[in-house]
Amino acid sequence: METVSTNRAFDGVQGVYRHASSATGTDMTFSVYVPPHAEGAKLPVVWYLSGLTCTHANVTEKGEFRAACAELGLIFVAPDTSPRGEGVPDDPVGAYDFGLGAGFYVDATEEPYAANYRMWSYLTEELPALIAAEFPADMDRQSIMGHSMGGHGALTIGLSFPDRYKAVSAFAPIVAPGQVPWGEKALTGYLGTDRSGWRKHDAGALIEDGARVPALLVDQGGADQFLVDQLKPELLERACADAGIDLTLRIQPGYDHSYYFISTFMADHLRWHAARLG
Amino acid sequence: METVSTNRAFDGVQGVYRHASSATGTDMTFSVYVPPHAEGAKLPVVWYLSGLTCTHANVTEKGEFRAACAELGLIFVAPDTSPRGEGVPDDPVGAYDFGLGAGFYVDATEEPYAANYRMWSYLTEELPALIAAEFPADMDRQSIMGHSMGGHGALTIGLSFPDRYKAVSAFAPIVAPGQVPWGEKALTGYLGTDRSGWRKHDAGALIEDGARVPALLVDQGGADQFLVDQLKPELLERACADAGIDLTLRIQPGYDHSYYFISTFMADHLRWHAARLG
Repeated sequence: METVSTNRAFDGVQGVYRHASSATGTDMTFSVYVPPHAEGAKLPVVWYLSGLTCTHANVTEKGEFRAACAELGLIFVAPDTSPRGEGVPDDPVGAYDFGLGAGFYVDATEEPYAANYRMWSYLTEELPALIAAEFPADMDRQSIMGHSMGGHGALTIGLSFPDRYKAVSAFAPIVAPGQVPWGEKALTGYLGTDRSGWRKHDAGALIEDGARVPALLVDQGGADQFLVDQLKPELLERACADAGIDLTLRIQPGYDHSYYFISTFMADHLRWHAARLG
Repeated sequence: METVSTNRAFDGVQGVYRHASSATGTDMTFSVYVPPHAEGAKLPVVWYLSGLTCTHANVTEKGEFRAACAELGLIFVAPDTSPRGEGVPDDPVGAYDFGLGAGFYVDATEEPYAANYRMWSYLTEELPALIAAEFPADMDRQSIMGHSMGGHGALTIGLSFPDRYKAVSAFAPIVAPGQVPWGEKALTGYLGTDRSGWRKHDAGALIEDGARVPALLVDQGGADQFLVDQLKPELLERACADAGIDLTLRIQPGYDHSYYFISTFMADHLRWHAARLG
């Protein structure tokens, strides 16, 4: 692991790191904030998965998470959203919603994406092992959150590993990719046309199929331009109601899809996570 | 005034606006955060002047000021750092520390800069009038802060209008431009080689010449790469001691010159301002 940069912030260290990923076959860059802590202490880890077009940098610069992480003693990990680099196949016409910056947190099975687009394995296996080895992380206390496509990632990963992630939350998540244009394009492109293979990457379908978490927190901007066509929080609401999952869904009037929305509610989410991380 | 964008944030509105400036002869862009407030209320105004290479966007995205401004009821105004646009002369070789993004908060007298580089008049006359007209601003309660070159601007403007700005603070300011390379280059280029004309744009010289403010707050990163050659807070410390100005100068160990430093201490500065704005 190579250190790209470190900056002191809120008495902790905001770092950016790069490593050669065996999961994706590329170099991967991520950021980690380590709050002030006692020598030798191990701290809980919050994973933040970003949305379409983002890298680690968007939330690192605009997410306003460090004050709360410093106060609550949380490590904050922000991975990239796809493999990148020479030879990594992109969307055929360079669209923003597939390929680079749009890995959708799956292991692709379709060509030419299968070799590199393995964000599921990268995030559930390889990167946690690296975080455990390189940072003062208590891997028995992990939680996960994300925004938009990253909200989809947080929900699907959280629902798939309910013992690993003690809290799961999202900002404006894609809750049912199998039923919206962004998700249909991505899952077709990465996983093929057989929709049965999509269900483990669709939060609504996962819940229908029996996946459970104790509680979910979701904030959704009421003025989000993607609310009606792509996000459809009512589908998650219905699935959680049917399954008896304790969902707190807050429609925040006037808020859009941007980091102005995310940063407003970030500290609130982190406090919710901290309460569940012990 | 044209609205470029508005985003709801911390129950207020983060806006970006553009107008044709008569001071600079160019379009100027700036951002204003208006916190939640009662209908008809007038709120105190904090001016934030940015550093070299910045536009309004840097602090707007990375400054982490909105939570505190919402809590304290402060309007936060972030202007650009120079005129921009076709025909605006830049540094002869495009250096980052002169010309575009580097107006140094003076009214230039030297050619070819005199026509457009009038940031002093823009910030002390034209933009305050626009803010008063367009926002719920109580112009009897203004304060000013800034970073690096913008710290220089905040100190020199604050010292020049002690009745107007109830509080003055800075992050890593250039405190004595007449004695450091950045300042010597800029003041020569904008104001010419006669150093007597520089004194009203040099915080240390202004204080020597009798300018006073009741109190100053300055945070300076101890690991700031520009500390020794360009910033020299000890010169401000000496001037304030000689003049009896109550300077709180905090050297923050390990902090650098970046927005990771600024955002860490932003809320603290805003609380200090709010206490003086009443």
